[in-house]
Amino acid sequence: MTDDLLEEAQLIVPVGYRRMEWFTGFGRQIGPLYYRDNDDGTYVRAFPVCEHHTNGMGNCHGGMLMAFADMAFGHAITRKVNRYWVTVRLLTDFLSGAKRGDWVEGSAEVVGEEDDFFSVKGRIWVGDRTIMTGTGLFKALGERPKRK
Amino acid sequence: MTDDLLEEAQLIVPVGYRRMEWFTGFGRQIGPLYYRDNDDGTYVRAFPVCEHHTNGMGNCHGGMLMAFADMAFGHAITRKVNRYWVTVRLLTDFLSGAKRGDWVEGSAEVVGEEDDFFSVKGRIWVGDRTIMTGTGLFKALGERPKRK
Repeated sequence: MTDDLLEEAQLIVPVGYRRMEWFTGFGRQIGPLYYRDNDDGTYVRAFPVCEHHTNGMGNCHGGMLMAFADMAFGHAITRKVNRYWVTVRLLTDFLSGAKRGDWVEGSAEVVGEEDDFFSVKGRIWVGDRTIMTGTGLFKALGERPKRK
Repeated sequence: MTDDLLEEAQLIVPVGYRRMEWFTGFGRQIGPLYYRDNDDGTYVRAFPVCEHHTNGMGNCHGGMLMAFADMAFGHAITRKVNRYWVTVRLLTDFLSGAKRGDWVEGSAEVVGEEDDFFSVKGRIWVGDRTIMTGTGLFKALGERPKRK
């Protein structure tokens, strides 16, 4: 085997993104997933549309976009209060599609907080094209370990 | 290798269910998925919660439930008018969780139709416990090949 083959199979990851180190469960199964945490508290999560994300038409499956939305939007709570959370309600609007090879990005912000319940408004996009918007209600659980 | 090992690794599938023959894309990745089409036009889709469906707490990941909802609810349109479809909007309410090993079932019915847009109301459950309810808006596309 030569190095050429390995290089051809490699993904060009945009600058600033790191791969999520998920080696078990659903996170591993639908990966690879990437993230970029910005110094101002904002963040982006991302994934490249691979064959195992596609529907019968060769585009990103709507179910994958919803699963990604759940992860990408809920993370706003982790960023804001560093707590675990569960999804209570999620509304997703499909505005456009993503093709195989597209680099899909998503982020969200907390827009409401009442006791342990957080309202989040999120968006998923490819380049300058929004492909999904959504709002979610999440319940925060216990504190996460402090980040190093 | 003996037959014993193979039998231990087998899943007991409830009577009437057949495995979906999905060998590509997202459908294969999050499978195995099962279905039961009833003679009266109703249907159930199902999956057993496996390790690759779990979240960090060992329960079924919310993203998996949403992806399953998309497939299980949208199928109501296939059953009703035998057309392809895309998801426009999906609202999912998380009422309870599913554990590893649980047999999760879901179904939906068309409750509204206007031009090519179909409103669908669905439910996902484990045994007699509802774990998710939802409503979806789907756009119907071209006709599917006739079923044999």
